[in-house]
Parts: sequence; C-alpha cells; structure tokens
Amino acid sequence: MTQWVRFRSADGHIGFGGLGRDQILEYAGDMYGAHAATGKLLPLAAVTLLCPCSPSKIIALWNNFHALAVKLGKAAPKYPLFLLKPASCSIGPGESIRRPAAYAGKIAYEGELGIVIGKACKNVAAEEASKYIFGYTCVNDVTASGVLNDNPNFAQWCRAKGYDTFGCIGPAITSDLEWSTLNVVTRVDGVERQNYPLRDMIFPPHELVSHLSHDMSLLPGDVIACGTSVGVGSVKDGSTVEIAIDGIGVLANRLRADDI
Amino acid sequence: MTQWVRFRSADGHIGFGGLGRDQILEYAGDMYGAHAATGKLLPLAAVTLLCPCSPSKIIALWNNFHALAVKLGKAAPKYPLFLLKPASCSIGPGESIRRPAAYAGKIAYEGELGIVIGKACKNVAAEEASKYIFGYTCVNDVTASGVLNDNPNFAQWCRAKGYDTFGCIGPAITSDLEWSTLNVVTRVDGVERQNYPLRDMIFPPHELVSHLSHDMSLLPGDVIACGTSVGVGSVKDGSTVEIAIDGIGVLANRLRADDI
Repeated sequence: MTQWVRFRSADGHIGFGGLGRDQILEYAGDMYGAHAATGKLLPLAAVTLLCPCSPSKIIALWNNFHALAVKLGKAAPKYPLFLLKPASCSIGPGESIRRPAAYAGKIAYEGELGIVIGKACKNVAAEEASKYIFGYTCVNDVTASGVLNDNPNFAQWCRAKGYDTFGCIGPAITSDLEWSTLNVVTRVDGVERQNYPLRDMIFPPHELVSHLSHDMSLLPGDVIACGTSVGVGSVKDGSTVEIAIDGIGVLANRLRADDI
Repeated sequence: MTQWVRFRSADGHIGFGGLGRDQILEYAGDMYGAHAATGKLLPLAAVTLLCPCSPSKIIALWNNFHALAVKLGKAAPKYPLFLLKPASCSIGPGESIRRPAAYAGKIAYEGELGIVIGKACKNVAAEEASKYIFGYTCVNDVTASGVLNDNPNFAQWCRAKGYDTFGCIGPAITSDLEWSTLNVVTRVDGVERQNYPLRDMIFPPHELVSHLSHDMSLLPGDVIACGTSVGVGSVKDGSTVEIAIDGIGVLANRLRADDI
C-alpha cells in the first residue's frame, strides 16, 4: 500500500512520490508506469501537495449507494448512472473552492471515494478490471444546487458540477486499498456530516471500471467518483469541508466567495 | 478567412496548415498562437486529415434552435443548456463511427456548427467573447438514442453521447466565418436529411462563449457544439453521414458495426 502524492517544492519543482509520516520519498518517471525512487526525502512541511493526478475526465456516479437510493425513493439502477465533470474543475488538497461569480445560491458538498485509473482500458471484463485501477483517493463532488434544476426541461448536471474548483481530489492516491471495510467521513468546520460505509455501494469499483470502460476509453489519471450517500448538505462561504478516508488521508478545501 | 487543418503525411509526420484547393500550406508553431508558414506545400491527396483540434472538452448544447424548440414543444431556454462529451470521443474526417460493442439500438446523427476556442478564457463579457474564438468547424454529435432514456430517473446524456468516435469534428477550422448567412446540411448516403439556417440559433456563438466561460474555464482547442435543429434521425450500420457547411467543408464519417 503506497500513498502517492504530487507536490510542488518551494523552488517551484513539481514532483511525485510516496508519502511517509512526515516526509515524501520522491520518485522519478511515470507515476502510472515505469518509475524509481530518486533517494531524495522531502519534509512534508516544505512542500505544497497538488491534485494527485491530472484527469482527462472525471466520471461522477449518481445513485450508487443503497442507503441514499432508499432515502430518495429511487430504485437501484441496473447500470451505472453518471455525468461528466470537466478536467478544468479539478483542484488539490488545501486549494480553495471558489463560488462562481454570478451565483449566490446553495453550494453542496458530496464526500466520495474516487477511483484513479492506471492503464488505458476499453471493454474490460469485471474480473479483469482491478488491474486497471491505480489506486483510490478522496473526492468532494461540489455542486451548485440551485443550478441543477433551474430549467424544467433539462437537468443541468454538467453545469452544476463543472465549475472551476468544483472537483476536489486528494490528498493522496492509495494503491491496494481495502475499500470495502472503510467509511467516507465528511466534516464541515470540524462537524461530522457524512459517515457512510463503502460496502453499501451498488456498483463496486471493479464493476464500475468494467461498465464504464464499455462506455468510453478510460485513460491513466482519469477519476471515477463513486457517488455519495446520505448526509449531503450545503456549505457556507468561508467554511472548510474535509473528506476523510482511512488509508488515504483528509482532503480539506475551503469555500471562498471573493471572485478571482 | 483561413481553413486550418491537421494532417498526417505518409511518413507519419503530424502537422498543421492552411487548406488550399488541392494542397496544404504547412505552418509550424502553435496553431492557436505564434506560428509561421514553413514554405512547404503538401498535396491534399498525399495526406490524411486528422481531427483539426485536440479538445480538452466538448460542450454540446441542447435546445439551441428555435425551429427545433417549437417542434419539441419546449420553451427557448433563458440560459444555454449543455452536456459534456469527453475528449476521448473525438474523431476526425473520414474516420469510422464505431457501434458500441454491447449496443444494438438506434444511433442518431446531429449536424452542428462547432466553435473552436483559441485563447483560454473565463468570465468573459459577450462583447469581448469573439476574440476568444479561433474559428468554426462541422460537428456530428452522434448519440446512442436508446441509452438516453433507458433509466426513468436519470437522463443519460453523457453516456449516450460519450462513446468513443461519437464526436466527429472537421474537416477544417475556418477563421472569420460569416456563420449567420450559412446553413448546416446533413446527408446520409447522399440523401439530404437536415438543412437549417444558423441564424435560427437561440444563443449565437459570442453569447455561448460568454455564458459558458462563466460556467468553466475554456481552453484552446475546446469545442462548443452549438446544438442541432430539425431533421435529426438515425443512421444504419454501413451508412455514411456528411455534415456540410460552406466555407468549412464536408465532414464525412461512416458507421461501422464490427467491433475493434
């Protein structure tokens, strides 16, 4: 089990490596392919952690937890239901979520497990799918709730969830994570708002990768956000949302209202 | 008015240039930025035209033509309605549209004008938006119609329109196109199926770029497919769909059923 991180050091160097207790063991090469340790150890306090991957797309699941399906009165789907978030929305740990300039409505957090793809794949069988998974990360699938149903004829999923900074990813990508025993915990300003078991997933990771690889080519660094469960709510300007999964870490992002 | 194309020559070299009657004037540099003619002329017959851009995302409009809105009995939207197609779905002129392996249902063509972004932009005013447009292209926004409403609780826009090869783009990107006087013509195996005027657009290109730049950062090469109008229909395996716009050219793609 390695916790992979990407970082920028004080001199502007961008690198990646494996996370230790309070330092990073730097690697060189391709994070998803051939790589080797450089031997260099960087104190965690001396670097800025970045979004741990550069997805070409973020596939976000809807209605993928039994508990939330029951609460919403929706049948469990027979096939994964998803929308796309653009690569341009992704940010890393510690970066600010920015309120869109022209939007004064509610902004919701959704704590989720993220699958990070390690090898390009297409039309993969479920029993083969795990080998295309590089690892797992935390995702905050941020949503401008007021935009979603603003038009009666068309649910605006991609717009409501696609704003710059609305795809929070990190802090690490953990390989060989035993996700089935873990919970996703979401805290807003330190107060727990979600705490749900990942074993309640309708389509587990290997089935998601298999199904979605029949819908489109999946590429290294692509992120599949596995959907959220009960406890979704809104976050106030200035508040900090933390998504925590044991073995991955805590993804913290503050909502800022002032425009760029 | 330049018709920009990307090409691969017989020796595998990939380049870009301006299209003449039967040859390409090669350029070097950044198609969207600093570039200069190399002086080299390549016979069009000796190269393969490629998708003229490499979008990081394709934003596809829904309900953006008055005539189609009237036909569907939908009010004109107050704000552009869109979904995202992944970059992985894009193909160029002459490439085959591939039927998804596990899908035997109807596949629909949608002939559209595509806007290609030339400069990164965010929160741009409508009166400033035109300078971020690099040019215009033809788009066939292909859809697996049977997937779209397969689940009663969730319209699967991104899945139905996101399959590999379902974003046909090209053959050229034409700068300074007087789109408002032009029609989009769609032919299936030579038979005209769509022929609608672009001046019937609800949100014209500069308004689309302005609005969408408030929803997400637009990047060079990104494509905004302006939506289609009346005459959408399905295409049979083996048939060829052509999307033609004067000044851009003819984008032809054949639907193939045999799997990869």
